[in-house]
Amino acid sequence: MATRVINFNAGPTGLPLLALERARAELLDFEGTGMSIMEHSHRGKDYERVHQQAISLLSELLAIPAEYQVLFLQGGASMQFALLPINFLPANGGADYLLTGVWARKAYAEAKLIGNVRVAANVEDARGVCTRVPGQAELQLDPRAAYLHFCSNNTIMGTQFHTYPDSGGVPLFADMSSDILWRPMDLSRFDLVYAGAQKNVGPSGVTIVIAKKSLIESGREDIPKIFRYKEHAKENSLLNTVPTFSVYMVRNVLEVVKSEGGLPAMEKRNRQKAALLYELIDEQPDFFRTQVETDSRSVMNPVFHLPNESLDAKLVAEAREAGFVGIKGHRLVGGIRVSIYNAVTVEQVAQFVDWARRFARAHA
Amino acid sequence: MATRVINFNAGPTGLPLLALERARAELLDFEGTGMSIMEHSHRGKDYERVHQQAISLLSELLAIPAEYQVLFLQGGASMQFALLPINFLPANGGADYLLTGVWARKAYAEAKLIGNVRVAANVEDARGVCTRVPGQAELQLDPRAAYLHFCSNNTIMGTQFHTYPDSGGVPLFADMSSDILWRPMDLSRFDLVYAGAQKNVGPSGVTIVIAKKSLIESGREDIPKIFRYKEHAKENSLLNTVPTFSVYMVRNVLEVVKSEGGLPAMEKRNRQKAALLYELIDEQPDFFRTQVETDSRSVMNPVFHLPNESLDAKLVAEAREAGFVGIKGHRLVGGIRVSIYNAVTVEQVAQFVDWARRFARAHA
Repeated sequence: MATRVINFNAGPTGLPLLALERARAELLDFEGTGMSIMEHSHRGKDYERVHQQAISLLSELLAIPAEYQVLFLQGGASMQFALLPINFLPANGGADYLLTGVWARKAYAEAKLIGNVRVAANVEDARGVCTRVPGQAELQLDPRAAYLHFCSNNTIMGTQFHTYPDSGGVPLFADMSSDILWRPMDLSRFDLVYAGAQKNVGPSGVTIVIAKKSLIESGREDIPKIFRYKEHAKENSLLNTVPTFSVYMVRNVLEVVKSEGGLPAMEKRNRQKAALLYELIDEQPDFFRTQVETDSRSVMNPVFHLPNESLDAKLVAEAREAGFVGIKGHRLVGGIRVSIYNAVTVEQVAQFVDWARRFARAHA
Repeated sequence: MATRVINFNAGPTGLPLLALERARAELLDFEGTGMSIMEHSHRGKDYERVHQQAISLLSELLAIPAEYQVLFLQGGASMQFALLPINFLPANGGADYLLTGVWARKAYAEAKLIGNVRVAANVEDARGVCTRVPGQAELQLDPRAAYLHFCSNNTIMGTQFHTYPDSGGVPLFADMSSDILWRPMDLSRFDLVYAGAQKNVGPSGVTIVIAKKSLIESGREDIPKIFRYKEHAKENSLLNTVPTFSVYMVRNVLEVVKSEGGLPAMEKRNRQKAALLYELIDEQPDFFRTQVETDSRSVMNPVFHLPNESLDAKLVAEAREAGFVGIKGHRLVGGIRVSIYNAVTVEQVAQFVDWARRFARAHA
């Protein structure tokens, strides 16, 4: 059995070993049916059971209230950037967006092609880099907005909302692609949250949408059927062929999350992992430099720079040799990004931090 | 090792055993990288290599001319039903559609929500059932149409175009979800073909689009970026996170197709399989009844009925006991459908036909 590396990819990223091992064990024969889960019809009872398990596990882990529905869609969060305003932005209305990073801006840019959208807060600098999320006092909300949209964790910037915005009664939509399931949350504050699966939930190819049934019902009907959340909801996400293997892997991942203690356990572990990394940063702030403001630090994607770019490159290369992969920062901000999603263990982060301390001693 | 069944599912359906075995062997460690292909970044060189291999293999197998581009998209053929008219139907123009079955009608219905579309031929009966495809003489084409759209194989009806329509110079678009790769084809007759992967190409979750670069370039720019073929083409289908594992499986399947002799070999094998099934039907036409006209018979999805519904149900149940699964007809037409895509072998079809002959002797 080959050695598995320690995977700090920003996404797609590492999956729990147990979820992969289960997939491997039954890849040619799913539960004695004589075929792979990916060879099953999406209309058959065997796949249907997996589909329902994935929904049930997500509902249980997130304590999703009964008035919400879970959807499995395709196209990534990027497709939702367009579908949200297409469904929910009335011709004579507007929506508010918070600009906190690359993905938040992309969501705004798509919506702008569809209807009337406003920037309710913008923390980008001239290059588009953000070092914090906006505070409540900074939000200039339109009380008549159809919705307020924000991105809860900014993967590229390494910033995260630790307190969700108060939308003042306006429906609240959140792109939680990179931090859904990181801890328990109160979904009742939201009308719709969505997430590409490829960080905390599973492989790429499936997008989770969790929305109030009443919101889904309110969507426009004069748009193509495949764009309507309402139609997907009516068919329990089986309006057309669902990405069956991706949903199956989501089911496997959620089983592992549950068996490891659910979201309270994930939160504890994620806070421990982030604490280890931020301790490293704070103990040698001249070597491990971060521009992210303390209150906005992401628990999922700590981002930092070394004193110069050649040291950044050296750390990335030597870390790879040592078995730590995926830590090169995004080209917009450069430096180092250590993505520590749910599947990364405390032990793995501790190993990296020890290794990085030694690297600092050798190069500081 | 458990026995694998003989999989006649309409899609998702059986994949070549070698493609699955390869996936299983490297599920935890893709080519010595220490992680699964689904844990790799879609921006990394390891996934990039797989992505390019999938494109190269498809290009080689289909002899795709240089002026065409291959895209891997999400959302199934159903998403293309909307995206095609959104990109290519001008506000002051129209498009022609051939109505030959459930999926062809769905494509038409979506387009109708977007712009001005015409029915250039309709072979549906009052219930929506079709027993043939239209001949060239029946087509009432608009020479000013932005495009002519048709579905090359009607999975539910068991009908197939054996000669592609002559569009008279109008750009020709085809939904080939259920028969792409069944044989070599002359792509130069088409401006755009598309296919959900889950029949001849791979698992669900990825949709193949092959289009003339000049057509792609001509797409509208005032629509959301994620809807624009042009943007996907510019980024080589990496505009956003691609369904990496689905593309990887497509690569694995295409490798097997190539190693087995490519599309000439597929055509020979598919014609043999279809001949075996249609011989069964033709030798006992009072027991194996088909309404599909001979010239329109599908090589991929032979459809027939037994003398009554209880015999249909008995055959489906007993076939399952004998290891043949997925042959219940679609609810719209009932009866039996034996989907014999590329991954089904001649031997497997011969086994089924022998079994069905014995069933007929016992019940005729």
